[in-house]
Amino acid sequence: MRRVTVPLGERAYDIVIGRSLLERAVELMDAAGVGSSVAVVADANVAPTYGKAVADSLRAGGRKVSALTVPAGESSKSLTQLGRLYEELAGLGLDRGSALVSVGGGVTGDLVGFAAATYLRGIDYVQVPTTLLAQVDASVGGKTAIDLPAGKNLVGAFHQPRLVLIDLDTLSTLPDRELRAGLAEVIKYGVIADPALMDYLAEQRDAILAREPGRLSHLVARSCEIKAEVVGGDERESGRRAILNYGHTVGHSIEVVAGYGAYRHGEAVAIGMAAAGRVSQDVLGWSLEEASRVDGLLRAYGLPTKLHQALPEVELLEAMMRDKKTVGGSLRMVLARRLGEVELCEVGEDDARRALRAVQP
Amino acid sequence: MRRVTVPLGERAYDIVIGRSLLERAVELMDAAGVGSSVAVVADANVAPTYGKAVADSLRAGGRKVSALTVPAGESSKSLTQLGRLYEELAGLGLDRGSALVSVGGGVTGDLVGFAAATYLRGIDYVQVPTTLLAQVDASVGGKTAIDLPAGKNLVGAFHQPRLVLIDLDTLSTLPDRELRAGLAEVIKYGVIADPALMDYLAEQRDAILAREPGRLSHLVARSCEIKAEVVGGDERESGRRAILNYGHTVGHSIEVVAGYGAYRHGEAVAIGMAAAGRVSQDVLGWSLEEASRVDGLLRAYGLPTKLHQALPEVELLEAMMRDKKTVGGSLRMVLARRLGEVELCEVGEDDARRALRAVQP
Repeated sequence: MRRVTVPLGERAYDIVIGRSLLERAVELMDAAGVGSSVAVVADANVAPTYGKAVADSLRAGGRKVSALTVPAGESSKSLTQLGRLYEELAGLGLDRGSALVSVGGGVTGDLVGFAAATYLRGIDYVQVPTTLLAQVDASVGGKTAIDLPAGKNLVGAFHQPRLVLIDLDTLSTLPDRELRAGLAEVIKYGVIADPALMDYLAEQRDAILAREPGRLSHLVARSCEIKAEVVGGDERESGRRAILNYGHTVGHSIEVVAGYGAYRHGEAVAIGMAAAGRVSQDVLGWSLEEASRVDGLLRAYGLPTKLHQALPEVELLEAMMRDKKTVGGSLRMVLARRLGEVELCEVGEDDARRALRAVQP
Repeated sequence: MRRVTVPLGERAYDIVIGRSLLERAVELMDAAGVGSSVAVVADANVAPTYGKAVADSLRAGGRKVSALTVPAGESSKSLTQLGRLYEELAGLGLDRGSALVSVGGGVTGDLVGFAAATYLRGIDYVQVPTTLLAQVDASVGGKTAIDLPAGKNLVGAFHQPRLVLIDLDTLSTLPDRELRAGLAEVIKYGVIADPALMDYLAEQRDAILAREPGRLSHLVARSCEIKAEVVGGDERESGRRAILNYGHTVGHSIEVVAGYGAYRHGEAVAIGMAAAGRVSQDVLGWSLEEASRVDGLLRAYGLPTKLHQALPEVELLEAMMRDKKTVGGSLRMVLARRLGEVELCEVGEDDARRALRAVQP
C-alpha cells in the first residue's frame, strides 16, 4: 500500500493506493476521521460490484450506510441529475456530520463531489475512483463540476476530499480503450514535470498494457505525486496549477465540437498534446525531437495524435476562446519549452490555427 | 460613510454603509479591485430603480455591464431558477475575471451569491442588499444557498463577497412590514452580544421606525460589526458562529410548517426568540426579567411573539429535528444565560415541546 499526501494545510488529505482496498474501506475511513453516517453513490456500471464492496465493508464496520446509484456517462453531470441526487440526500436525512462516497469514474466523482461541496453548504467527501483516468487526475485537487448545455464543467466548486481510496484491482475490469485514455494523462505528467516518467512509459509499455499491478501502482502514485505537488502550491488555480491543462485547451475544444462522447477525454487530450507540441515548437522553440518523442509515445499506447474526421477550424477556434481559462478575451495555452518544463503562454490566432491544422486528418 | 471590515484573512472584505452609494458603485468597486466585466442581477422589484442605478454607475465608469433580472420572492431560490441564471451567464460569455453583482433582498443575494460561488468554480461577487434584513444579516459571512422541495437552504456554499455596498436610501422604499422583520435580527444581535444595543433600540424606537438615517446607520453598522466579529472567528460555522442562530431553530420550523410566506423570516425569528427565551429560562436559568424585556422590545417594534394561528406541535418538533444544525440526531438550540451571553445547548424533547407550547396562540 502506498500513500500520497496532498499538501493543502488544514484541507490536506491522503490518497491510498493498493490492492484489495475496497474491502478495507471502513478501516481506512475510520483512520481518516470520516463521519459515521455515509451515502455511497456509485455509477450504474460499478454499483453491483465495487459500490457494493465499499458499502458492505462500511456496513460490516457498523456504519449507517445508504447506497445510491447514478446513471453512467457524461449526461449524468447535469443539473437535472444533481437535483435528483440532492432530493435523495434530503430524503436520507443526512446531516452535516455525514459523508458522501463516490465510486466510479471521473463523471461520478465530479457529480458526487459537487453534491458534497454544496449539500448543507459542504459535507465530507471520500472518493473511490475506479478508472485510471479518475485515479491519476480527478483524485488530486478537489475540482468538482457539472456541465451546462453551454459547455462542460461550467459549474463547480473546489472541495477537497477527506480521503481518496485507489484500489488497483478495479483496473482489471476497465475496458482497454479506457485504460489507454487514462494513460494519456500519465504521459501528460511526464511532459510537464518528469522526463524519467517518459522513459519508464517507453520502457515498460508491454507490462503496463498487460496491467501488471506493480507497474500500474508506480504510474498512479507518480502521477498523483506530480499533481499533488502542483496543486499544493496553487489550490485555486490562480497560477502554476494551469500547467496541468497541457493538451487540454485544444482537447476540450475537440470534445465540444465533435460532441461529447465522440472522443474519450484522454483521446481528445492526446490530440490536444500533439497540437500543443506544434505550437510549442512555433512559439517557444521546443525541439522537434522531443515533441516527436511525445507523439510517438502517444501512438505507442494506441492514442490518436490526429482527428479521425476533419472538424471545422473556426468552430474549434471559437471553442478554444470560450474555454474558461480565458481571461480578458486573450487565448492562452500551456506550452513546452523542453520535456518537463512547461508554461502558460499567450497565443496568437495564427499560432492556434496552425496547431489545429496540424491535427486535422 | 462608514466601513465595517469582515476579518477573514485573504478573504477579508469591507461593508460600506452610507447614503447615495448606488451612484458611486463604480468608484467603490474599483477601490475593491473588482473585475471589469460585470453582470448586475436584480430582483424584479428593484431592477428598474436600484438595479438600474448600479448598472448606470458601472457603465458610466467604462465597465462592460449586463443587467439581468430574477423574479422576486423565495421561489426564486430554486434549482430551476439557478439553472436559468447559469444559462444567462454562459450566454454572456463571462470569464473567471468577471463579477456578479446582486441587487435586492436576501433571496436575491442567496441565489446570485450561490451562482457566483459555483459558476466557473467561483467568480467575484459584490452584494448590494436593499432590505434591512439583508443588510444586517446576509451581508456578513458569505453564506449563499438555494432551497430544495425538502427544505430551505439545503444547498449552498460559503463564498465571501469582494465588497458589500449598503445604500441606506434604499430603505426609504421598504414596506413597513419588511423594515420590522429586519429589526427582529437587529434585536437578536442585542440579545446575543450587546445589551447597549438593546438600550438604544428601546430608547430610539420612534426615530428608528421613522427611518431616521443616522439611527438606521448605527443599527446597520453595529449589527454588521457584531456579526463580523463572530464570523471572523468561525468562518465555516463549526463553533461560535452557531450563536447567530438564536431564535432560528424554532423560527425555521415555523416557516416550514406554516409554509414559506405565511410569516416573514424576521417574524418567524421573533417568535423563535420568544420560544428560545422560554427554553433559556428552563435550561440555563435565564432571568424572567431579561427574557420579558426582549419579548417587550419585539412587541414594541410590532413583531409577533406568538403564532397567529395554532400549528401542530409534532410537525414543528419534527422540522426542528430536521434542521441542518442537528448533528448525530440530537436537538441543539442557542440559549441565553443572560443578555449578551448565549451558547449552543443540547435540548431535551420536553424542553422543546414546552417552548413550542409557549408560542402557540
